[in-house]
Amino acid sequence: MKAKSSNPTMKDVAREAGVALGTVSKVMNNIPVGEDYRIRVEEAAKKLGYQVNSYAKGLKTNHTGIVALIIPTLKHPFFGVLTDNVCQVLMKRGFRTLLATTESDMEMENNCIRMARQHKVEGIIALTYNPDIEIDEEIPFVSIDRFYTNRVPCVASDNYGGGQLAAQKLYELGARKLLHLRIGSPVIGEPDKREAGFESWCQLNGVPYRVVHKNDADGLMSFRPILEEMIRDGKPEYDGIFCNTDQLAAVILKMLRQLGLSVPEDVQVIGYDGLLDFTDYKPYCSSIVQPVERMAETAVDILLNEDRSKLPALTCLPVSYRPGGTTRD
Amino acid sequence: MKAKSSNPTMKDVAREAGVALGTVSKVMNNIPVGEDYRIRVEEAAKKLGYQVNSYAKGLKTNHTGIVALIIPTLKHPFFGVLTDNVCQVLMKRGFRTLLATTESDMEMENNCIRMARQHKVEGIIALTYNPDIEIDEEIPFVSIDRFYTNRVPCVASDNYGGGQLAAQKLYELGARKLLHLRIGSPVIGEPDKREAGFESWCQLNGVPYRVVHKNDADGLMSFRPILEEMIRDGKPEYDGIFCNTDQLAAVILKMLRQLGLSVPEDVQVIGYDGLLDFTDYKPYCSSIVQPVERMAETAVDILLNEDRSKLPALTCLPVSYRPGGTTRD
Repeated sequence: MKAKSSNPTMKDVAREAGVALGTVSKVMNNIPVGEDYRIRVEEAAKKLGYQVNSYAKGLKTNHTGIVALIIPTLKHPFFGVLTDNVCQVLMKRGFRTLLATTESDMEMENNCIRMARQHKVEGIIALTYNPDIEIDEEIPFVSIDRFYTNRVPCVASDNYGGGQLAAQKLYELGARKLLHLRIGSPVIGEPDKREAGFESWCQLNGVPYRVVHKNDADGLMSFRPILEEMIRDGKPEYDGIFCNTDQLAAVILKMLRQLGLSVPEDVQVIGYDGLLDFTDYKPYCSSIVQPVERMAETAVDILLNEDRSKLPALTCLPVSYRPGGTTRD
Repeated sequence: MKAKSSNPTMKDVAREAGVALGTVSKVMNNIPVGEDYRIRVEEAAKKLGYQVNSYAKGLKTNHTGIVALIIPTLKHPFFGVLTDNVCQVLMKRGFRTLLATTESDMEMENNCIRMARQHKVEGIIALTYNPDIEIDEEIPFVSIDRFYTNRVPCVASDNYGGGQLAAQKLYELGARKLLHLRIGSPVIGEPDKREAGFESWCQLNGVPYRVVHKNDADGLMSFRPILEEMIRDGKPEYDGIFCNTDQLAAVILKMLRQLGLSVPEDVQVIGYDGLLDFTDYKPYCSSIVQPVERMAETAVDILLNEDRSKLPALTCLPVSYRPGGTTRD
């Protein structure tokens, strides 16, 4: 029995497999070779205990095979599903995911970008809240939901179209006075266009509406007095509510029921995100569904695009409407 | 204005800062130096655009600062919260997380371990379902929820104690005939001890009980006939049900209500995991709570422990009971 070489090289593998060195290199870099050659090389590599050293490879070719994903948290299902999808898409393209969660902390976001650079990642996909984020042009960068400059491609769902669609659906389903409730970070981002789309649709179509705008610091409970005020003789002043997230919609639905209103009879509610309850895979509410898988794929496609001169500054992916029991359809 | 050197070295930084080369090295490796020195080095590094090249560092010192986390999915909130915690704990200890999601695919799990080795990670934390996983002893490995051999440290919640606690709580709260419903992977893992603990407590205390065991392939709906059969004259044969996950408990709760039973009046239900609904941060049900943060910390502590001769083969972390509206407390 032959002892394994302690540090077998590609040359050792070529000798063992009886193939040219170039063939071994191709197999190790996932470049197609004849199936027979591939098997011989893989068996020889296994026998000798040969391992590709991605670090040596990273130094030599600048190809580390790592992409950094910077995301606020995995405690919210939208970010969990998005991260899962980005990780799977990168894996399929031969890349690994260096994950950093930031809790939306601005300083942490910049730390994570610096850390990613130190690890010589080949690209960064980030969903951040820092308006002064440190982006350089050496490493490809794709932003999700946050538009920085024309030089940083941003991927988002069609938030504006989603806001329009929500207003239109509520109207088509019989609502005649619409309310938009919005909660989120005070940092401007693409998701703010949900409100703009909603408002624009109502104005263009002459449908009366109101918008109530809160920041995360106000808390979800800050909407309770708004709802209380709008009830006159047991009926709501607004008969269609568009909430800017499914999470907010779920909270509003509970409040409406506590206040004695029936959904969707007295008031119809539409959320945004299209999340499914993990216990039964059912929607929380009628919702504008974000195309999460396609957002992940598009972000990776743009990141890995070799011609960086033609990248669109903003890619808005089409959303769809899905009934979920809180509208009359 | 001085042009930035295209590839400044540590020597350039030392010259710029007016300090010894060793001081720069210490600062770059997070080894404590006087605050004044640290600031001077950091400012010089920033001015020159000096970046630590972790790849070069990885080759030279074998310290890449990366730990791989291999996890089935981020679409389930338990894994999302666990991953978030592991990532945060690693970050605090100066490590980065290389994330791989496997969809519980056995081959993918081994691929991910091989990939982690190629990237010269300093350790692997994995939650896997492959009984023949390829673990070598070169890279520290910590398994979550799956016990392989005495040489691979495993971290889990105290599943056995949790099963006992669920039976005991149901009994203390007045239930007199107990049912345990279990669904999951057919692969044996630490979570199976929830059933063993429940069964053992019932036997030791002479409390009548039954266990119904299903695999993921059977689907959650396969419990419906079991529940239908157990109803006699509108009352359930079993008045206390322990479900092996909160997800299963949520499904069972809906079925019980559909069958006309009141919870917790007719039947009390306890789940396992201690998840909170992300829409209102409330529990889905009364539950045995897994100490997720502590599990993440412990897995990292064990992984980074320098003396690998004394690591416990299995670390079971204490669970707690939390009422959540589906029991009479």
